[in-house]
Amino acid sequence: MSKINKVVILGAGNLATQLAIALNDAGVNILQVYSRTIQSASALADKVNSIAITEISNLAKNADLYICAISDNALESVLDQMPIPIGDVVHTAGSIPMDVFDDYTECYGVFYPLQTFSKNRKVDFSNIPICIESNNLGLQADLMELAGRISNNIHIIDSEQRKQLHLSAVFTCNFANHMYSIGQKLLAEKDVDFDLLKPLIKETAEKVQELDPISAQTGPAIRFDKEIMAKHENELKNLPDFQILYRFVSESIFKMHSEKK
Amino acid sequence: MSKINKVVILGAGNLATQLAIALNDAGVNILQVYSRTIQSASALADKVNSIAITEISNLAKNADLYICAISDNALESVLDQMPIPIGDVVHTAGSIPMDVFDDYTECYGVFYPLQTFSKNRKVDFSNIPICIESNNLGLQADLMELAGRISNNIHIIDSEQRKQLHLSAVFTCNFANHMYSIGQKLLAEKDVDFDLLKPLIKETAEKVQELDPISAQTGPAIRFDKEIMAKHENELKNLPDFQILYRFVSESIFKMHSEKK
Repeated sequence: MSKINKVVILGAGNLATQLAIALNDAGVNILQVYSRTIQSASALADKVNSIAITEISNLAKNADLYICAISDNALESVLDQMPIPIGDVVHTAGSIPMDVFDDYTECYGVFYPLQTFSKNRKVDFSNIPICIESNNLGLQADLMELAGRISNNIHIIDSEQRKQLHLSAVFTCNFANHMYSIGQKLLAEKDVDFDLLKPLIKETAEKVQELDPISAQTGPAIRFDKEIMAKHENELKNLPDFQILYRFVSESIFKMHSEKK
Repeated sequence: MSKINKVVILGAGNLATQLAIALNDAGVNILQVYSRTIQSASALADKVNSIAITEISNLAKNADLYICAISDNALESVLDQMPIPIGDVVHTAGSIPMDVFDDYTECYGVFYPLQTFSKNRKVDFSNIPICIESNNLGLQADLMELAGRISNNIHIIDSEQRKQLHLSAVFTCNFANHMYSIGQKLLAEKDVDFDLLKPLIKETAEKVQELDPISAQTGPAIRFDKEIMAKHENELKNLPDFQILYRFVSESIFKMHSEKK
């Protein structure tokens, strides 16, 4: 029988929602879902056969694990309201060091699923990297076992590496997605459907599953094709932010390719 | 029997290679492959049962279509060497207007497959958008029929729209890919394997196949989370280019989200 069977989820945002659903699907008992508003706590609790609470003072005492999946800013104020010692606790954040829990309990850790989560898009957890860290080898083993019930892609990652993973994820996910948004905005100006870009977006992401992204690169910037770049910058003359970005990223691409040679 | 059965491919780069392979697989006869060097002309010609040539003067006269899949800079000098009238001719470029052919022949057009091509990565053409334009309705119909033999995703797109598609493709493909390169570089500094980012990259691209990219956005920039952003910028202090980029793109994301509200 596995150690962690009863968990409390603190938070009801995108990550909390998808993680709670995945754990519940894997047979983990979600004792409670805490959120500041009853609407959001209930919305998630209903999905995972759980009880919604909005007061930390109503926290169940008998959970095997408290999972704080709340915003970085809210974490410390929630911890301050919890009874000390809290019990075994983890957070799910990329950029918060594990020792944030040091004053609150004995055994703690991090359970960081590296993925982009939206509330209404169910994700397949099975290949999502889950980055585990703990100050206690017993808890670390239990966290890995728990993670193993929802994913095949478990890693022990320290706080320093996790911070860098989070930063890299901002570039590869949030910033890449912003490039999609810009593409969509540009097409809308000429009444062209964003659908035309979708196979390209998909292939760009597929390519780097196999090739190194530097080797996978194509387009005018790697050959610093001044003629096309000047045309493009001219087309962006009424969108000065995108024009600056175009020039800056093109130069960055060219620089990275020159360094590689 | 379809009209276009014998084609000459001018060019042997990434796009020329993948397009010639797809056409050959579809039963189109690739009469010749022209390239400036015999090495590159032969490398492609051998793949598609064709004849390599390095002199425009050796061009076959009996092709149904001449496909110029050469760099934008080289196009006009190649055209200048071709016998006038050239015959039916298209180029495959995003940013060159169709009327570049105006002085050279009567019927011409554009056959622009919107995808990122690498020489050694075979792509499935079947869902690649092929953007067709022609100054002649008969040729336009023939080009659509030809495109339909390799793809199910055919569009009539004028030069102005195609230019904008190309610009949007630079953002959504080349620039997104550069964000992957930056992620890889950052991870390498802390000895973390780029593989950890791959499911995230894939899901980010999958998400926008269904969701609007603005709705799909996650991460610190949409909520302008100053604390995380300051941490990230600090982590980038030894990589000033990436630090500037981080700030600039974060502000651009926040601005786009604020405008949407």
